[in-house]
Amino acid sequence: MTTAVHPSVQVGPGTTFGEGCVIGPNVSIGSGCAIGHLVVIHADTRIGNEVRIDDHATLGKRPMRAANSATTKEQELPPLAIGDTCIVGTGVVLYRGASIEARVLMADLCTVRENVSIGRGTIVGRGVTVENFCKVGRYCKLESECYITAYSELEDRVFVAPGVVTSNDNFVGRTAERFKHFKGVTVRRGGRIGAGAVLLPGITVEEDGLVAAGSIVTRDVPRRTLVMGAPARPVREVPVEQWLEHQGWTDA
Amino acid sequence: MTTAVHPSVQVGPGTTFGEGCVIGPNVSIGSGCAIGHLVVIHADTRIGNEVRIDDHATLGKRPMRAANSATTKEQELPPLAIGDTCIVGTGVVLYRGASIEARVLMADLCTVRENVSIGRGTIVGRGVTVENFCKVGRYCKLESECYITAYSELEDRVFVAPGVVTSNDNFVGRTAERFKHFKGVTVRRGGRIGAGAVLLPGITVEEDGLVAAGSIVTRDVPRRTLVMGAPARPVREVPVEQWLEHQGWTDA
Amino acid sequence: MTTAVHPSVQVGPGTTFGEGCVIGPNVSIGSGCAIGHLVVIHADTRIGNEVRIDDHATLGKRPMRAANSATTKEQELPPLAIGDTCIVGTGVVLYRGASIEARVLMADLCTVRENVSIGRGTIVGRGVTVENFCKVGRYCKLESECYITAYSELEDRVFVAPGVVTSNDNFVGRTAERFKHFKGVTVRRGGRIGAGAVLLPGITVEEDGLVAAGSIVTRDVPRRTLVMGAPARPVREVPVEQWLEHQGWTDA
Repeated sequence: MTTAVHPSVQVGPGTTFGEGCVIGPNVSIGSGCAIGHLVVIHADTRIGNEVRIDDHATLGKRPMRAANSATTKEQELPPLAIGDTCIVGTGVVLYRGASIEARVLMADLCTVRENVSIGRGTIVGRGVTVENFCKVGRYCKLESECYITAYSELEDRVFVAPGVVTSNDNFVGRTAERFKHFKGVTVRRGGRIGAGAVLLPGITVEEDGLVAAGSIVTRDVPRRTLVMGAPARPVREVPVEQWLEHQGWTDA
Repeated sequence: MTTAVHPSVQVGPGTTFGEGCVIGPNVSIGSGCAIGHLVVIHADTRIGNEVRIDDHATLGKRPMRAANSATTKEQELPPLAIGDTCIVGTGVVLYRGASIEARVLMADLCTVRENVSIGRGTIVGRGVTVENFCKVGRYCKLESECYITAYSELEDRVFVAPGVVTSNDNFVGRTAERFKHFKGVTVRRGGRIGAGAVLLPGITVEEDGLVAAGSIVTRDVPRRTLVMGAPARPVREVPVEQWLEHQGWTDA
Repeated sequence: MTTAVHPSVQVGPGTTFGEGCVIGPNVSIGSGCAIGHLVVIHADTRIGNEVRIDDHATLGKRPMRAANSATTKEQELPPLAIGDTCIVGTGVVLYRGASIEARVLMADLCTVRENVSIGRGTIVGRGVTVENFCKVGRYCKLESECYITAYSELEDRVFVAPGVVTSNDNFVGRTAERFKHFKGVTVRRGGRIGAGAVLLPGITVEEDGLVAAGSIVTRDVPRRTLVMGAPARPVREVPVEQWLEHQGWTDA
């Protein structure tokens, strides 16, 4: 078994391939990358330097269009772009039309769909889905198995705990009216969502806002406020020592 | 690297294969199908026309039998059957003994187990599990990461939002008595379950019933009734404009 | 297409390989194993006898180290070890540094990370994640899509229902202080967690304790006590006929 590399592929020095990979036409791969076994990289994908791609990953996949999908239309998409020193885990699926900055970790079995951008240094956890038409900032942590619905925006340094569920359709799949109102969630800089919380469509979590684990969030979360319960209500200010500006973090 | 096609395989005109696929004995594949890279199709699987199958999918897998499984027995199973113009996403796992009608979308990394039927035009979302012994109707939407427990029935036009969890064992794994009482959930025609809701074993959601996001459903949901909370209680009638009969939908 | 077996690999009699597998240096595989198609087994992995490994599984993967991970450090890890008569499902990812006893079922698309031990006869369900630094006992059932956070301990005969979420960081990703306090959940012998429940960091469920479906657990669960609600409160004693000691189970 060998790797099937299309003759038009460009590969930088020091990049290695495992067994049984399939690399499509016009793919470009930088230098010093380590590509695992049985990896599929579709046409035109652009990969930076020092990127690690683990076994069974699929990069640059074209969207599937269901006959009755509410949010996926046929469209031209730019190639998938992955920045330097990213890590792509085992079985990850990245779509054509996604743009991933440098130093992003995409853990095993996560999916990033088309028309999504992910900022530098963000962690996309194991099994996470980032649906189409999302913007994710820099240095976010999307922990294992959280779900980011279509049309969401997460600013920098956002933390989403394991098992968080977000939603974008207040009409729950009914009425033609709903197509005008699809709206994901917005989490402003430093906002944090606790484990297993559920966010209703269109919710905004303001800067440094914090949702307690297991809460059902039906109203916007004010700045530096902890909300809790079902439905979630403000309970107190976020402790000063937990404010983003007090972490001493610098971007790297 | 080439594709390993057993000599007994039947393939219709215009069907294409990617690299590194493994197609077992007595598989039949219709015309105009597009099969990705590194796809495994096990013995006897029957695939219709114009079906798209993406990379790393596994079709026709035989069940695994754990020594102490409560619901999986050794049995003879009919071959996996997939209807015309279905789409099978990346990394999908479909079991022998499943029957999928035409125009079904099975998104990336979903699983459909043995003794399951899925009706025409249904969407099985990303990462969804449909466990064994389930019946799913036509034109349902099972959104990303929802979980359909064994012994469930979903009628036509059912909507299950992201992250919904269902269950089937009121005895939580104890007593021999429980084997007589395993019962999944039943969702009647047009029933809808909001994001992150949890349904207890044996719950029925009646026609056009609606469960609010994040609810814990411990009692049956009446027809055209919105229930909410933990435990969920009826709060009002579903708005008339959201009734299934007012959508103007026709089957296609 | 053939299977790429490193010349240093040791394989017992009666073991079979599917197409397109990649078996790395110094792997040892016992007798009577059935290995599917497109399976990757990394260096040094040790597999017992009569083990079934399904298509697209990845065994012995090395951890990925994100620049800003809170819990993953570079380290030497012992090889992945898998006991006799285990079953490894389709698309499963098992890390170097995990130790799996005999008769464990790891269902499709589950992940077991480094520095994890799993006891004899346990079921790790479909899509389950067992994060790093966990200890899972014997004859546990971790049902589909549950999430076991890092630094957790589950004793023998623990039952975790589908969609359960656990967590380990009370500081939700902020303050340097948090690194001293990371603590997963502890579930003592026979403890049970109902579907979709959320457990906060550091929670202990005592012997035969039972968490009702959908509960948010913010305090320890006493022995043989059913807790329910958000936050969960004790409601009654677990029925005598459900006590572990009354099941008549013997280890096998």
